[in-house]
Amino acid sequence: MKYSVTHTDRNARRGRMETSRGVIDTPAFMPVGTVGSVRSVSPGEVAVTGAQVILGNTFHLMLRPGTEVINLHGSLHDFMGWKGPILTDSGGFQVWSLARKKDIREEGVTFRSPVDGSTVFLGPEISMQVQKALGSDIVMCFDECTAYPATVDQARESMELSLRWAERCRDCSLGAEQSLFGIAQGGMHEDLRLEALERLQSIGFDGYALGGLSVGEPKEDMLRILNSVTTAMPADKPRYLMGVGKPEDLIAGVAAGIDMFDCVLPTRNARNGWLYTRRGIVRLKNAVNRKDTQPVDPDCPCPACRQFSRAYLRHLHVTGELLGPRLCTLHNLVFFQRLMADIREAISDQCFHTFADEFMAVFGGETDDVV
Amino acid sequence: MKYSVTHTDRNARRGRMETSRGVIDTPAFMPVGTVGSVRSVSPGEVAVTGAQVILGNTFHLMLRPGTEVINLHGSLHDFMGWKGPILTDSGGFQVWSLARKKDIREEGVTFRSPVDGSTVFLGPEISMQVQKALGSDIVMCFDECTAYPATVDQARESMELSLRWAERCRDCSLGAEQSLFGIAQGGMHEDLRLEALERLQSIGFDGYALGGLSVGEPKEDMLRILNSVTTAMPADKPRYLMGVGKPEDLIAGVAAGIDMFDCVLPTRNARNGWLYTRRGIVRLKNAVNRKDTQPVDPDCPCPACRQFSRAYLRHLHVTGELLGPRLCTLHNLVFFQRLMADIREAISDQCFHTFADEFMAVFGGETDDVV
Repeated sequence: MKYSVTHTDRNARRGRMETSRGVIDTPAFMPVGTVGSVRSVSPGEVAVTGAQVILGNTFHLMLRPGTEVINLHGSLHDFMGWKGPILTDSGGFQVWSLARKKDIREEGVTFRSPVDGSTVFLGPEISMQVQKALGSDIVMCFDECTAYPATVDQARESMELSLRWAERCRDCSLGAEQSLFGIAQGGMHEDLRLEALERLQSIGFDGYALGGLSVGEPKEDMLRILNSVTTAMPADKPRYLMGVGKPEDLIAGVAAGIDMFDCVLPTRNARNGWLYTRRGIVRLKNAVNRKDTQPVDPDCPCPACRQFSRAYLRHLHVTGELLGPRLCTLHNLVFFQRLMADIREAISDQCFHTFADEFMAVFGGETDDVV
Repeated sequence: MKYSVTHTDRNARRGRMETSRGVIDTPAFMPVGTVGSVRSVSPGEVAVTGAQVILGNTFHLMLRPGTEVINLHGSLHDFMGWKGPILTDSGGFQVWSLARKKDIREEGVTFRSPVDGSTVFLGPEISMQVQKALGSDIVMCFDECTAYPATVDQARESMELSLRWAERCRDCSLGAEQSLFGIAQGGMHEDLRLEALERLQSIGFDGYALGGLSVGEPKEDMLRILNSVTTAMPADKPRYLMGVGKPEDLIAGVAAGIDMFDCVLPTRNARNGWLYTRRGIVRLKNAVNRKDTQPVDPDCPCPACRQFSRAYLRHLHVTGELLGPRLCTLHNLVFFQRLMADIREAISDQCFHTFADEFMAVFGGETDDVV
């Protein structure tokens, strides 16, 4: 993978990642396809929204359907019909958030499978082995997500474990076209975060990520870490803020110098009937939409806005029709991709901060505002 | 609406209905779009499967979203984005199968809404009023679905009520482009069925339907009624067998002289992971599909078969991913539409009965066979 920064606007960067499966323009937002499907939409539709890379999950895919089934098809791409690049999460976060009866040791983590209750072991080597088998274009190190809140001592202990695991990940063999990203933990403690980044760099990775943010901490803490740590991430490698986020968080991340994001928000909120527009969030269920023959956003080119009214989308939502989540997901994915495209354009034009201010005038306050 | 029979092969007929919203080649299968959406697929996708007409439900649509909301968009077609003709069920069957605390009187039926428990009244005039408002191309008379089993006396009483209601429906004003179909009841009693058809003809309708079949009776009873009554339906008008059915029932219906069918089977079974092929039914959940990289049906042009393996579709099914029901629904709708197209072709070529025999060699016995 080749990465180059093509434009900067203060700390904000526009760049270009070249992978063997296609180009990723950054800052980029990656839709989440947890178990090998971006929920409720087809791979062809995801491509049409403008997404150039999607995310898959080691944890889920190793449990179901397992790498053997996927490898009979070739790679994860062949299995799920997505031709572009795929970044795979290492499973560290999912072990932390989803697995029961966890036993975390130096070797790795033993846990009960949420699928069938069986005992499963996942550690750095197995995570690399699974991600190698998936054929991921970007492989993430297996790490421990530091819980929030964590004292300095707790955060350091967790960070040290993640660093030892990062070395073991680096020692594993991957495919020639696969990149490996390191993940900096350190809780809400800047000095730990900076130390983690320095030590990850001495191991040497193709990109660097911030993990353990957006895990329940106050927004000020996330922004504090983001703003004090991002510029210490290597300038010549992609910088990835994991699991973030809301549109206003994407703006804050880009302003801090982040290049990549992923989040379930556009897809999950779509299924709950929350639709993003540049004028705020439309909640379909609200009675005001019941007789509204207008599209959710007249300026949006998505199929939901081009072909259907707010009243029809609301009807699909309240009757539980499966076409509803699909149309809403397409809308939200288009919103997120257009936002990223506009962000990239604004950086090239040296007007990102004006763009950001205008955007935050709508999204900076009560982001649950309904229009 | 103009209807003409273009070919016959014994009792089987090929024909052509011309509506102001497009042609319907018969024998035709109508996918069911109960509340204004063919479940889990978009109207554009339904059209691509080859469907020329879909079915909507008066009962569901009057409760949600109501005709006022739909009329703000124009007709049901405008509301749901389906440009072709729509046939609407009158609500009679749904009152019978879905409503609680029914009170059936001469005037009509009072029942508890399954949506919100409110008291709702539906009778011939209101059903016509609703279907007029929906802008249905084919309007069905409001009738009482005769329960199975029913004695001759019970069936006659119910049939007489439906005939009085049919007269009241005929007396209502409809749009100039709307056709009205009469529905013959009569339970499993041929003589009542024949009498109902004769008396409906003297009222005069644009098409005639058989209702109250496929409601729990043994298959022999359905076939007996079908074979003894269908040829007594006017030859110059479309003949519609309501709520049927399985592929083998479509073959039997066509052989008896039926022109139109509707059923939730292809869409509902798709959501349960049952996929139709000319070699039998594929149940995705079966372990044999777990590692199968082949398509469900190599000869099928649907998106599920062109782009995805049995193993991937099974994976979507067992993980509950929403892309699964959609791909399976497209597959089954394509199967039903291709079956109807082949039936029409076989009738033109005077080889329908050979085609039917070959088809029934697979589907005539244990139709739940798995391949």
